[in-house]
Amino acid sequence: MTRTLTARPLDPKAFAPFGEVIAAEGPPDRIINAGRCGRFHDRARLDVDGRAGISVFRSESVTLPHAFSLVERHPLGSQAFLPMTQSPFLVIVAPDEGGRPGTPVAFVSAPGQGVNIGRNVWHGVLTPLADPGLFAVVDRCAEGPNLEEYTYDQPWTVVPG
Amino acid sequence: MTRTLTARPLDPKAFAPFGEVIAAEGPPDRIINAGRCGRFHDRARLDVDGRAGISVFRSESVTLPHAFSLVERHPLGSQAFLPMTQSPFLVIVAPDEGGRPGTPVAFVSAPGQGVNIGRNVWHGVLTPLADPGLFAVVDRCAEGPNLEEYTYDQPWTVVPG
Repeated sequence: MTRTLTARPLDPKAFAPFGEVIAAEGPPDRIINAGRCGRFHDRARLDVDGRAGISVFRSESVTLPHAFSLVERHPLGSQAFLPMTQSPFLVIVAPDEGGRPGTPVAFVSAPGQGVNIGRNVWHGVLTPLADPGLFAVVDRCAEGPNLEEYTYDQPWTVVPG
Repeated sequence: MTRTLTARPLDPKAFAPFGEVIAAEGPPDRIINAGRCGRFHDRARLDVDGRAGISVFRSESVTLPHAFSLVERHPLGSQAFLPMTQSPFLVIVAPDEGGRPGTPVAFVSAPGQGVNIGRNVWHGVLTPLADPGLFAVVDRCAEGPNLEEYTYDQPWTVVPG
């Protein structure tokens, strides 16, 4: 049996239970560089045990409809995905229900939107919707296991909104 | 009198005295997500007194030739600029010579390249070469003065390489 999720626009309020949308939204917090630049300040809750670092992920893209059954979470830290292109990507997250992921929610980003996924929040792996799937990633860069995976017994299929 | 700088390609080795180029360069350090994604791990030296955070900068673009006389540096931390588009940006940096900036060096980025500018490294303000000039920025998000500015007595003009 097919279980379907409709991808909704990545909205900061709808995403709030899972983390933060990182974007130049609303008025800038500061104007700098002689008026030429707006700073949208401190838009993610970095929450990392040990040292955080900046990495780059280069991922093959997926197309909609997109089927998945695997999600994961990181008990030792948040993970921010900052697209290095203006192409959209899917953000799949799920609430925790007693140590297991519940029904997932799928978002699709607009240009200029990144996300910070909270510590221990269930999420799908990186799913850009166009090549090159390039992201700067701010997450824990320290030794030790920091991955929990869960495979749904039936796949979910994400369709366009 | 006009003083000219030729913008050179943003090369990790040439940039090394000033910080790190953050990019998917060379072989990935790890392959993740069932082979679909390469992780280029921990590519910047985050060096921040106090808490680091993620902000977004939206800057008006500049065109070449580009004249400037102001540079700045941050004594309390490194600052990473991660472009959220594939458009090039200028990276202007300068060596320190006894507490003042020496002759600047100008780099122009390729798609998929960000930079981390080291703590206390003299640099120009953000200069995207196309709109929208959108960048995720990882730097110090804590109170207290963290800015030193210097104005050259004559402007420098950056020209294409």
